[in-house]
Formats: sequence, structure tokens, C-alpha cells
Amino acid sequence: MQRVVRWYPPAYDIRVEDVPIPSVVDPDDAIVKVHLAGLCGSDLHIYRGHEDVDRDIICGHEIIGEVIALGTSFNPSAAARAGRPELYSTLKIGDKVVSPFTVSCGECHFCRIGFTCRCVHSRLFGSPALSGGQAQYVRIPKAGGTLFNLTSIHAPPSNGPQDSLSKVSDSSILLLADILPTGAFAAIQAIQHPKIATILTGKAYPFGAVVPGFVTDDQTLAQLQPKDRTLTIAVVGLGPVGVCAVVSLLHILAELEDSKGVELAYQVIAVDPLETRRVKMEAVYKAIHTVGTGPQRFLVTSIDEAKKASSDWTDGAGCNAVLEVVGNNSALTLAYDIVRPFGVITSVGVHQEPPLPFNGRSVYDKNVSFDFGRCPVRAMFPLALEILLKRQDVFGGVGEEASLIDRVVSLNDAPDIYEQFDKGKCGKVLFNPWL
Amino acid sequence: MQRVVRWYPPAYDIRVEDVPIPSVVDPDDAIVKVHLAGLCGSDLHIYRGHEDVDRDIICGHEIIGEVIALGTSFNPSAAARAGRPELYSTLKIGDKVVSPFTVSCGECHFCRIGFTCRCVHSRLFGSPALSGGQAQYVRIPKAGGTLFNLTSIHAPPSNGPQDSLSKVSDSSILLLADILPTGAFAAIQAIQHPKIATILTGKAYPFGAVVPGFVTDDQTLAQLQPKDRTLTIAVVGLGPVGVCAVVSLLHILAELEDSKGVELAYQVIAVDPLETRRVKMEAVYKAIHTVGTGPQRFLVTSIDEAKKASSDWTDGAGCNAVLEVVGNNSALTLAYDIVRPFGVITSVGVHQEPPLPFNGRSVYDKNVSFDFGRCPVRAMFPLALEILLKRQDVFGGVGEEASLIDRVVSLNDAPDIYEQFDKGKCGKVLFNPWL
Repeated sequence: MQRVVRWYPPAYDIRVEDVPIPSVVDPDDAIVKVHLAGLCGSDLHIYRGHEDVDRDIICGHEIIGEVIALGTSFNPSAAARAGRPELYSTLKIGDKVVSPFTVSCGECHFCRIGFTCRCVHSRLFGSPALSGGQAQYVRIPKAGGTLFNLTSIHAPPSNGPQDSLSKVSDSSILLLADILPTGAFAAIQAIQHPKIATILTGKAYPFGAVVPGFVTDDQTLAQLQPKDRTLTIAVVGLGPVGVCAVVSLLHILAELEDSKGVELAYQVIAVDPLETRRVKMEAVYKAIHTVGTGPQRFLVTSIDEAKKASSDWTDGAGCNAVLEVVGNNSALTLAYDIVRPFGVITSVGVHQEPPLPFNGRSVYDKNVSFDFGRCPVRAMFPLALEILLKRQDVFGGVGEEASLIDRVVSLNDAPDIYEQFDKGKCGKVLFNPWL
Repeated sequence: MQRVVRWYPPAYDIRVEDVPIPSVVDPDDAIVKVHLAGLCGSDLHIYRGHEDVDRDIICGHEIIGEVIALGTSFNPSAAARAGRPELYSTLKIGDKVVSPFTVSCGECHFCRIGFTCRCVHSRLFGSPALSGGQAQYVRIPKAGGTLFNLTSIHAPPSNGPQDSLSKVSDSSILLLADILPTGAFAAIQAIQHPKIATILTGKAYPFGAVVPGFVTDDQTLAQLQPKDRTLTIAVVGLGPVGVCAVVSLLHILAELEDSKGVELAYQVIAVDPLETRRVKMEAVYKAIHTVGTGPQRFLVTSIDEAKKASSDWTDGAGCNAVLEVVGNNSALTLAYDIVRPFGVITSVGVHQEPPLPFNGRSVYDKNVSFDFGRCPVRAMFPLALEILLKRQDVFGGVGEEASLIDRVVSLNDAPDIYEQFDKGKCGKVLFNPWL
């Protein structure tokens, strides 16, 4: 038997229970002994009863642990013949692994192309479709595609010694399961959008947004002036994912500045109505600001002040991009209000049933671009890992002023911790199922 | 006095009247004698009374003609000193010009960066803010930024002899005022989107969508296979702009195929409920299909068949991108239904007041990207001109089976022609104000 955190419908009912240890039911399965499991803001959708779930669920979708059992698909010779994902040949009992928050097979069109969160076999851990990781053991379907093997993975060469990952704590690595890739996804979608790329390249739209291999004449209306090239980007929502989005954005922009041929000025507005979250964001910014030259201006502020700054800092034009990391219509409306014409809104918040708060004319008249949806964690892993390793000042600790993780608790604390987290009384919490 | 087409509120009231010839009222003005003026699908929004306009309007926003008067800003020496757009130094009485459908100064941030339809001085011709071009004469504000001078412009070098433009008819060039750039805008937004670029480059997301200058590791989950690289794109709405979108899309994809280092397969589904429009699209496709290798599959079809093809042709995944060229919620809903997860919807249709037909969960669950809004005609001009010159088989004629323009009529025919056009009884019509 094992101990798990289980939610019961209709809402706010979290119990700690003993249930059977999961076993391999499919040849592609792995069973993982959980070292740490995260409590995530999106767990609150289930907790609050917003998802119309009518059965009990073993919660949690952020998982780090070690492999204790493998299905028969995990076999070096047979797997190699079948041309399956590498882990079916290489993953071994005892290997340390981290799991993205959804299953991805690594073999379907969506996985191959990098849209891993839309795998045809996609299931969310801690949902009615699949038991989660706030438990002592968890079953990982399609494990050769889903898991990262931390024992064998090499950190990107740009990050120095290959053994740097071994010096990183489990609590830090766990951020790769969801919130850091999701924050990085919000940032990279904005930076890669053609409407922003045109500013980065200094060539007027549409030819500043180059499709590789598309040869055309470099005819521009006018040379871009330095003031045209100041990027103003807002991040709406400073929960743990929002902080990851800000750190990722600053990291990517600093890398762009450092790389050849790109000179840019940027200013960042980080917005949240909650004082506690703003204090955390300020502390994080202070911790990372020593790396790189940093933005021209950085402001952590409330909603009203954010509206003022997005206008004052841009001669009334508004933000080039807004990263929406909340998942409700108030946040989307604020994003629309502060984005400039031809601006980009990237929305990674988990949205529910209400209609989008826009009409056709409002989005036409502002030439707004939107990128909605879930982070493809596996595809974002290389970038997120790079950020994790370079920003250990933020991601490395627990319970410090600039740490993203407030504390590590026992599964037995789950009922109380869910309630505190729901009321905004604690930040990011991890469960150690062996405490 | 001059003859004009004037609309009266509340709806369906078009009159042909004699009014004073406009004169220069601002130093940046030009007065243009109109050679041809188009009737556009978006004129119908005013015509039908959907825009809540409570005063009469001189209609029309597609204009080609010659300069007969210039304000005092047009002065080679003074203009050169002030560093203003080139036309303030070079435009002369008698020059042949085409005007985009909105004013753009060429000097504000939005104009410099290529987002010309969101110029801070933007006004739409044929709206309450500015008299239109279905007239013998029209006043062009900010003319040194707004107009294209066809007398001095050079066709892009890739299109052969520089004098090729001189062989193109006025009726063909008039398409550069709105519908051809708008169609090209719909196409290029889809092709340039990072989610599509990743397929074009053959590198998995997110690093297939390269930000120039952003150095990162080329770590992919798996090599993309040929079947992952088949692009399936639908165009919803086959009015004149929709046909231009299809032609632009095929042109851009053929150029991509021809250019170095890009190999791709693509299939195109062109959708309209109206039989007459589908017949025109078929004829246009037949005319252009001899150029380039062409798509793997091309289908002109109704809505139900489009849903079937978008599934059957993609193993159930749906279209990578959908170009929405209608401007109502039925078209947007169809676009959503047939786009695949991580797909892109570019919407250039002129939308009205109804709320968008999506809720937050629907767009999150499909990872949909949207690019909404008006074409920045001035910025799209080089690409549109290249397409115009290369596709004279489609854009060169009037009244032929594969022509985009049905006929050229007198201003006196306006009341009747508006009614026919509103009822879908005629295609694209141009007014010659001197007939």
C-alpha cells in the first residue's frame, strides 16, 4: 500500500488515504517512486470544483522520482529495432526522472513536431483520465516518450560542465515539470512572433519576420529608428508561473542582447493585484538583475499603475506584447487594454467556460494576435533547462526571499496546505511523500 | 463640380450626385483625378447600415489616378531638409498614383515599422472620417506617406525588366489598393507564424521558429518525417479577397519550394458556400496552375465537404492554418472547427460587434493562434506587386473566366451595381468616373 492525496467531488474535499501501489498495466508503462510532487495553481481548478469532475482523483502533475519498474517495451535490442524513442532502449531501474504534467508518446505527429502537449495520447496527471503524483508511487504511461531521464541527460553545452545538472536540487529540477517551461513558453511565443521579430531584426514588417529560405527583396518603407526598437512587454499574473515567465523573458532578452547582431532596448512591466506576489517578484528581480545588462526599466505594480506605465512608457502606444499567466477574463481584458495595435498577447493561463471578452471589431481594429494554450513541456525542455541552470539564484533554494518554492511538506499536510494555497496564504509548495 | 457616388443613412440608399471638386486644405494634401475606383466587399458594411453611420458619405476606398494638385509640403529642397518621406520631394503634378485604402503618414512609429494601417493619422477612405474615391476627384491626406507613385516606382528586380509595371493595366494595378495586399497579408501571416515556420524549416518546435540572432542548441525530440512536413491550409471565403489570398498563398509556397533548402508538400482547401464564387476560384486556379509545381492537392468546395477534406487529408488532425476572409462568426467558427491543435487562424475579414464565438477553454484546449485585423497595405506593397506582376494570367484581365474583375462601369450605374453586388449577383466591379 502507499499514501496518496485524493480529491473528492464536488469541491474543497482533500483526503490523505492509503491505496494500492500502482503496477505496470501496459508494456510502455514505468512505475516511479516519487521523491517530490508539486502543488500547482492549476490544481485549484479541480479543488474548487470548476472542472465538473464527478469522481475522486489522486492529485498532482509535477513529479520527480526514480524508476522502480518498467514494462516489456523497455528493452535495448527490441526497442532499437522498432525505431522507438530513445528511452525505450536506455531507461533503467533506478534512473532519476522528471515527468512533464501530461503524457506524450514521442511518436505521433504532434510529438515529433514539438507540439507535445497535444500528443494524440495526451492525458493530464491528476485528472479523471490519469492518477497524479501527490503519492508515493505513480504510473507513467508512454514512459519512453513522456519522461526525462535525469541520470543520462546532458545539460546544453552552452551551460558549461556536463555535470552541472548533478549539482541542482530535486526541488529545483521539479520546476521543469510544468511551471518553468510554461513561463518560458509564454515568453518565447511573444519573442518569436513575427510582429515582435520585426522589431528585433530592425527591418520593417513583413520582411523583418523572415521565413528561412523565403527569398524576397529587402524593401522597407523607412529605416527603423532606435526608438522604434524599444520593446515594452507586460506580464499579467505573478504567481509562480508568472514569475517564471518574467525570469524567462529577461533571460531570453539578455541572450538576444549578448548574441551577435542584435541590439535592443526593452522595458518590462510585471503586474499583479496581490501585494505578497509583488514582493516575491521584486525579490526575484533583485536576485537575477546582476546577470546581464538588464532592461531599461522594470516595474512591479498593480493593475491601475500598469495601465499608466504601459501608456507613459510608450508615448501612448501600449505594450508590444503581453504575457497573460492567470487564466481568467479580467486578465485577458487587461492584456487587451494595455497591448498596442499590432501587438501580441500570449495566454498560457488555464481558461474555463466563459466566452472570450472580445468582439470581432475590437480585435480587428487593433490588429491583435493571440497565442493561446498549454505548454508543450517536452519541447520546451532544452530552453527551460538552460534557464534553470543559469538562474539558480532564483530556482535553487527553498524558503528564501527570492526562492520560487516556499516549503516542502508531508502528504499528511495536504488538506491544510490546499486550503492555504487556495486562499493565497502560501506560495509554491512541494510534497515529500516520505516525510 | 464633379460627379460622386454618395451613400445616405440608414441603409441601401446610394445616389449619384454633383458636388464641388475637393481642394488642398493641408500642406500634405494631394488632389487626385480618379481613373478607376473599386467597389469592395467591405463597402457593403456601410451600404447595409451595419456601421451605425448617421451622415452621408462619398464612397470608395480603392483609387488609381493622377495627381492634379499638391500642397506646399511637396517641395524638393524643403522636404529633403526635413527628412520627410521621399514623395514629398519627388511627387509631381501628372504622376500616376495608387492609394491604399487608408491614410498612412509614413512618419509615425507604426508607419516606420510597417504597421501602416495603424498609423496614428489613419483614416479610411469612404468613411465618415474621409471622403472616398468613387468620384472624379479625391483629396489624399498625408499624401507623401500614403500614395504610391507608379510613375517612378521600380518593380522588384526579381520580376525582370523594370518597365514591366508600365505594361500592366490600371484595372490590374488598382488591386494593389486593397484586395491583393489583403489576400497576401492573410497568407504571409500564416506562413510566417512560428507554428508553421517550424514545419517549413523541418526543425521541431520551438527552435524551428528561429529568432534571428538568438543562439540556442538545436535539440529536437525527433527528426521530422516527410509526412510531418505536409502543410494543409484552408481559405474560408472566396470573394475577390479570398481568391487573392489563395493566389498569394500558392505564390508564396511555390517561391518557398523554388528557393534553396526548403522542400515541402502542401495541400489547399478553398471554401465558399456560393457556387458562383467556387466557379471563379476553379477558373483562377486553372489559369495559375501552370506556374510552379503546384500543391499536392487543391480542392474548391462547400463547407461540409471542407470539413471532411480537412480531416481526411490529415489523418484527422485538421488544417495547419486557416485563412478567414469573410468577417463573420460563421466563418470564424468553421476556421476553428477545421484547424488542428497548434494551428493558426489568420483573420482579415472585417468583423463587427458580435462577441467572438469562442470560450477560454476552447482556445486553450486546442492551442490556437489568431492573427486578427486590417492589412497594412503600404507594408505589403512589395510582396503584392511581385505577385501582381507574376500572376497577370489572373490579375491582368477584365470580364474573362479567370479575371478577378468582372466589369468596368460608370458612376451612374452605382445604385444598381451596389444592389447587384450586395445580392452576390456580380463579382468585382470598377467605376470609371469618366464614362
